[in-house]
Amino acid sequence: MNLENNLRTTTQWEIIENTFDPDQLVTTGSNFMIGNGYMGYRGTFEEWEAKDYVACIVTDTWDKAEGSQWSELCNVPNGLFTQLFVNDKLVTVFDGEITDYYRALDLRNGLNQRKMRWRSSEEDGVQLEVEKFASKTNHHVLAMRYSFTALQDGTYRLNTGIDGKVWSIKGEHFKSYTPFEEDSLLGLSLKTYEQDTEIAVVEGIAFLENTPEKSEITITDKGCFRELEFTLKKGETVTFQKVVSITHSNEVQHPIKLAKEEVSQGLQYGYDTLKKEHQQSWDSFWDRSDIQIQGNPEAQVLTRFNIYQAFIATPTHANLPIGARGLSCQVYQGAAFWDQETYNLPMYCYTHPEIAKNLVTYRFDTLPGAKRKAQNLGYYGAFYAWTSGKTGDELFPDYFFTDVLTGRKIRNHFNCWQIHISPDVVYGIWLYYEASLDWDFILKHGAEVLFEVAQFLVSRVHFKKDKDRFELIRLLGPDEYHENVDNDAYTNYLTKYALEKAIWAFDTMKEKEPNRLQEILNTVGIEEQARNDWSEIAELIYLPKPDPKTRVIEQFDGYFTLEDIRPDALRKRLIDPGEYWGWPNGIAVNTQVLKQADVIQLLALFDGFSDEVLTANYEYYEPRTEHGSSLSPSVHALVACKANHHEEAYRYFMEASTIDLYNASKKVMSGGSFLGGIHTAAAGGVWRIIIEGFAGFKVKTDGIAFDPAIPDAWEGISFKLFVKQCLLEISVYKDSFHVKSDRSNTDSITIDFRGQQVSLVPGAAVDF
Amino acid sequence: MNLENNLRTTTQWEIIENTFDPDQLVTTGSNFMIGNGYMGYRGTFEEWEAKDYVACIVTDTWDKAEGSQWSELCNVPNGLFTQLFVNDKLVTVFDGEITDYYRALDLRNGLNQRKMRWRSSEEDGVQLEVEKFASKTNHHVLAMRYSFTALQDGTYRLNTGIDGKVWSIKGEHFKSYTPFEEDSLLGLSLKTYEQDTEIAVVEGIAFLENTPEKSEITITDKGCFRELEFTLKKGETVTFQKVVSITHSNEVQHPIKLAKEEVSQGLQYGYDTLKKEHQQSWDSFWDRSDIQIQGNPEAQVLTRFNIYQAFIATPTHANLPIGARGLSCQVYQGAAFWDQETYNLPMYCYTHPEIAKNLVTYRFDTLPGAKRKAQNLGYYGAFYAWTSGKTGDELFPDYFFTDVLTGRKIRNHFNCWQIHISPDVVYGIWLYYEASLDWDFILKHGAEVLFEVAQFLVSRVHFKKDKDRFELIRLLGPDEYHENVDNDAYTNYLTKYALEKAIWAFDTMKEKEPNRLQEILNTVGIEEQARNDWSEIAELIYLPKPDPKTRVIEQFDGYFTLEDIRPDALRKRLIDPGEYWGWPNGIAVNTQVLKQADVIQLLALFDGFSDEVLTANYEYYEPRTEHGSSLSPSVHALVACKANHHEEAYRYFMEASTIDLYNASKKVMSGGSFLGGIHTAAAGGVWRIIIEGFAGFKVKTDGIAFDPAIPDAWEGISFKLFVKQCLLEISVYKDSFHVKSDRSNTDSITIDFRGQQVSLVPGAAVDF
Repeated sequence: MNLENNLRTTTQWEIIENTFDPDQLVTTGSNFMIGNGYMGYRGTFEEWEAKDYVACIVTDTWDKAEGSQWSELCNVPNGLFTQLFVNDKLVTVFDGEITDYYRALDLRNGLNQRKMRWRSSEEDGVQLEVEKFASKTNHHVLAMRYSFTALQDGTYRLNTGIDGKVWSIKGEHFKSYTPFEEDSLLGLSLKTYEQDTEIAVVEGIAFLENTPEKSEITITDKGCFRELEFTLKKGETVTFQKVVSITHSNEVQHPIKLAKEEVSQGLQYGYDTLKKEHQQSWDSFWDRSDIQIQGNPEAQVLTRFNIYQAFIATPTHANLPIGARGLSCQVYQGAAFWDQETYNLPMYCYTHPEIAKNLVTYRFDTLPGAKRKAQNLGYYGAFYAWTSGKTGDELFPDYFFTDVLTGRKIRNHFNCWQIHISPDVVYGIWLYYEASLDWDFILKHGAEVLFEVAQFLVSRVHFKKDKDRFELIRLLGPDEYHENVDNDAYTNYLTKYALEKAIWAFDTMKEKEPNRLQEILNTVGIEEQARNDWSEIAELIYLPKPDPKTRVIEQFDGYFTLEDIRPDALRKRLIDPGEYWGWPNGIAVNTQVLKQADVIQLLALFDGFSDEVLTANYEYYEPRTEHGSSLSPSVHALVACKANHHEEAYRYFMEASTIDLYNASKKVMSGGSFLGGIHTAAAGGVWRIIIEGFAGFKVKTDGIAFDPAIPDAWEGISFKLFVKQCLLEISVYKDSFHVKSDRSNTDSITIDFRGQQVSLVPGAAVDF
Repeated sequence: MNLENNLRTTTQWEIIENTFDPDQLVTTGSNFMIGNGYMGYRGTFEEWEAKDYVACIVTDTWDKAEGSQWSELCNVPNGLFTQLFVNDKLVTVFDGEITDYYRALDLRNGLNQRKMRWRSSEEDGVQLEVEKFASKTNHHVLAMRYSFTALQDGTYRLNTGIDGKVWSIKGEHFKSYTPFEEDSLLGLSLKTYEQDTEIAVVEGIAFLENTPEKSEITITDKGCFRELEFTLKKGETVTFQKVVSITHSNEVQHPIKLAKEEVSQGLQYGYDTLKKEHQQSWDSFWDRSDIQIQGNPEAQVLTRFNIYQAFIATPTHANLPIGARGLSCQVYQGAAFWDQETYNLPMYCYTHPEIAKNLVTYRFDTLPGAKRKAQNLGYYGAFYAWTSGKTGDELFPDYFFTDVLTGRKIRNHFNCWQIHISPDVVYGIWLYYEASLDWDFILKHGAEVLFEVAQFLVSRVHFKKDKDRFELIRLLGPDEYHENVDNDAYTNYLTKYALEKAIWAFDTMKEKEPNRLQEILNTVGIEEQARNDWSEIAELIYLPKPDPKTRVIEQFDGYFTLEDIRPDALRKRLIDPGEYWGWPNGIAVNTQVLKQADVIQLLALFDGFSDEVLTANYEYYEPRTEHGSSLSPSVHALVACKANHHEEAYRYFMEASTIDLYNASKKVMSGGSFLGGIHTAAAGGVWRIIIEGFAGFKVKTDGIAFDPAIPDAWEGISFKLFVKQCLLEISVYKDSFHVKSDRSNTDSITIDFRGQQVSLVPGAAVDF
């Protein structure tokens, strides 16, 4: 069934599934998930097990499974596990007759809900109602309210507890399982293989309506369960609440003790109280982050869905990375990629700078890992990990994909040639600084990162004496199908940019904070002379320029000489649909077909290219792009906006915003790797399309600017921004534009609307 | 059957096959071939056709077959085609009973001979005797004497003429066939597809014993034949001679006219006269080129076989390349590779400098092609073709191998990353100059090549400012399994060497011939300033040095970090035995297993490495080498000599010298490509092993030196050298060493024997 047709919304604050479709089980498990940035709990059903892709992924638990070279986050035992048996028949969506089926994700409140009426025969049946959430106020806590009503007299049996038999992509992470029962709580204490991390999962329940007649505890080798029995008359209801706490020794000192305390306290407060606090936290998030779209309910709910998914993927409790699949599964190792800076960071920079600060501080915290990586590869300075976990050491394995035709592992070079990650980190820092004006961050953390990245670039460039220019050799740009290229447009421009920011930080500090500058230079281990190296390279680095005739920028040296074929024609050369298209011998390698276009990425990030160049490049690269990356639609939407291709911009907005919800990308396996889960960057990209694309928002040194182009299908957009320390309310309609500076602001801000500039004092508003 | 056991020799001047082995048909066709550097005629039987790999490959006929992207030499129609029918039964080695079988290659006289007694039943049988040669005095001419004796009374029918249905690897080369009969001669005139080259094959016959009763001419679309009938009594013999001339419009103005004249004249002279002239020419070759090995008949005949094969592959009539498979088939396109300079040139430099001069002049003649190649790839100067035909334009195709597992073409980069070919050309020029002292060649041709190569290197290097060194990025060294490497030991050392030779030529000319220098600078289009670029790079280019601890030189940056496995263990990973091991995803790519070791190649070419370094590198690289290249055994033999591994040196000598004759390499197909034929470089390498390895011969600026180590299995070696304009006779025994300067010499020469130096005047001799 087409997912799109199986969904509805009533208030545009929730998504509701009409029927259960077992074929979409992997995808809906991700789509209906709950989370809080510490853990992600998939939107699966309580009675499900590992084979159904149940997962509770917890951040900061990186570990290599037994015998694996892959560091990934642990999927922890399922503390919400609950099976209901009616006359010994398991209540499940896979069996029996289901009516009044309802699975919903409440985006406003971060709740997963299920209702259904289940019958296996005339003699047995039950009405089920479950709600659960991952608390936004105590990130260790999952809470559930589970209720069922007998449709016939009969015996009803519950098996609820902690299921330790988990789905794990790269193998077993736990070398020991210690189940226990203490003070009416069930617990499972685990030790991870590689890191020896102690993880505790503790659960407790309390009955709110009816109590069991029989109750027994079962301890197995990997779990502990309560067997509860009820004899019910038709119409009688049983309701219980469950509180689970998940803790680990990478965050807290005594995981078991703390988890037990949190569960006991949670049960004392009760489900409703926990939920109320949780909702308040979500309220305050949405107050700043909601985008209201007038005149298009589908776009409205899609937008909220994507902001929701981006948010629950973000660890707001600590300086930790946003995983490329958030916490929706173990894919991409729960680690940050360049998407964190280029797709997810902007939303936070302009709405919740405190979260943005966590993220950029995370890059400072991982400087030692980035320096180790540089050193291991024969460079110096900071070469950030392509796949970055807690320490910033490179997590991306040498062999990622498998050649499905031969079964051999493929040696990709994401980990050593995709150097744009380091300038991307600088891009993020500058983005944060320009939005927040947090000079203190630059002084304490930012400048050191900028200098270390600049040093890395010094160690990475080559000088062509005969051409009097610096070059970057052997790169992998965002278009990952073409490894081993020279002078990639995206990477070379970003390198110049990163060096200029280092020079800016150097010069500004030299003027304002010479002592701190000297301190940082000492820490980095360089002399003032280093600044000359940076400026020499920034000045002389080769930037592929638009062709004087066609205006097209060549993606990398020699790209135009590759076979010029379109993705659909190329696809016919596949021998196996699961083949990886890229390096070393995939079908795209010797062609101009791109996974995503580096030049489009470049144009999406930077201003200063003429309309002519924007249009020419968009029109050249768009038809050659396979969109094999979930990052692709949102940049295409952004650049289509800039290039005045408004219809296509909207088409790409729809693609980007439905990648997960409508399963638009459809790829779960590629090159032998499972690639399911939520595309967190695409979710972040949706915010960018609307605010930067449709509303035409842009931060400038001296203020902010707007140049909106509302999609035809919409009437208007309203949203808030918090930028340059000013909270603003903005409404954009087809024929009007309204900005209000919040009364609480302390400074005025300059608003540029298509060239008209207004300085807005606190409390004032302006219409254009 | 093992080929080795099927061969014998009586005078060590011939190889004789004991029985016909159809399984070895491809190989023996090459081994028993005749040729003269203009054409190669495979050692096949007269009655054979295309399916039996009959071929007559003619140099200077490069052409792309219909629909092919591959330029290759043409296989021309077989003018010696002759079938004999006894009572309508074809006399062939594939049928009937064969006795007194004898196929021989007379190395001394360049003759192919066959004798056999054939019977299909009691009623019919024939004694056959054939001899043929490719004339060394008129390179267009093939001559044959064909004789048969009736073993029973019966009807004997000959079908002899020109068979135009040829074996051609990349497809049909001839767009038109025009057969004709004129003045009792048969002819076939052809036009090639791409180049419109006119090729003429003309034949004539004359009976020496008996004449046919019936004679008829048949003209088919691709051939013309004489049908000749004889009724013979038992014991009666028929003998005829045949003369064929093969001419083409790339060499002569009127190919048909000339071919007819040559055939008529040849028939007038008669087979015996033609053969006598031919033998005289071979005599004078062997007089200078023979190496006499005392005490080991097998090594003696192997040595002569290899010198023979190297010689018949060499176009001595013009400045044309030596093909990597000579003229034994179309494989490797009849074109020169780096082997020409490093494996084949040395023998000529030190025995027949006039032939060496042809070869180095060929590199001058192809400068325009090398300059076009550089320009096409974004460089300047001369980037010599990896696969070099007449014009020096690159003939190596982008897609050479096929991935046998997927059927997809493999994009190799032999044509664009294997840059050492340009320094190799310089190596050849210097070799020739140092041996011949032909300063005139440097002035007229050599210096321009040196300067253009230096300019190419200027355009190819990158400068690492932070390391204050030049680097060479993205290389493919002689070890072709590892493409895309940086700072390849062989390439970097050779680059420095090539630049130093350009500087030497510049400085010497500036002193001696400033006007000519200015002329060349003008031709190249550079200023005197260019010399500074060369010397800056020569001084600062990074040379991978022996590791201070292990003394091993790393083949390229990061080689030591690759998986350290041995070839035999690695081979087990093959899915298909025909897989290509190298780029991009072959089994050797991510391992230390080499096709041939670049460092060994380096040590083979250059002096100045300590014994410690020689031994350490030999011992490190030898076990990691797969010897997937026929070039590998001879350099291993050479370096084993230098590294005092004498037993291994001899083992590698035997490998190198038997690659073809014993079919030691056994590879006819690799990566989907037919790779049969004679390994011309290996043949040239055998000379080098004996003279440079076992006799320890070395040319020095002020003379020549010897440091011999005769193999245990031999008693001694005698040979001639013509070096520094002196003809020398040398005999090396285990306990004595003898050099005699020929009376005809005009100058004395300094001989260094393990440090003892003697100046030898003309006519004098010395014993050490």
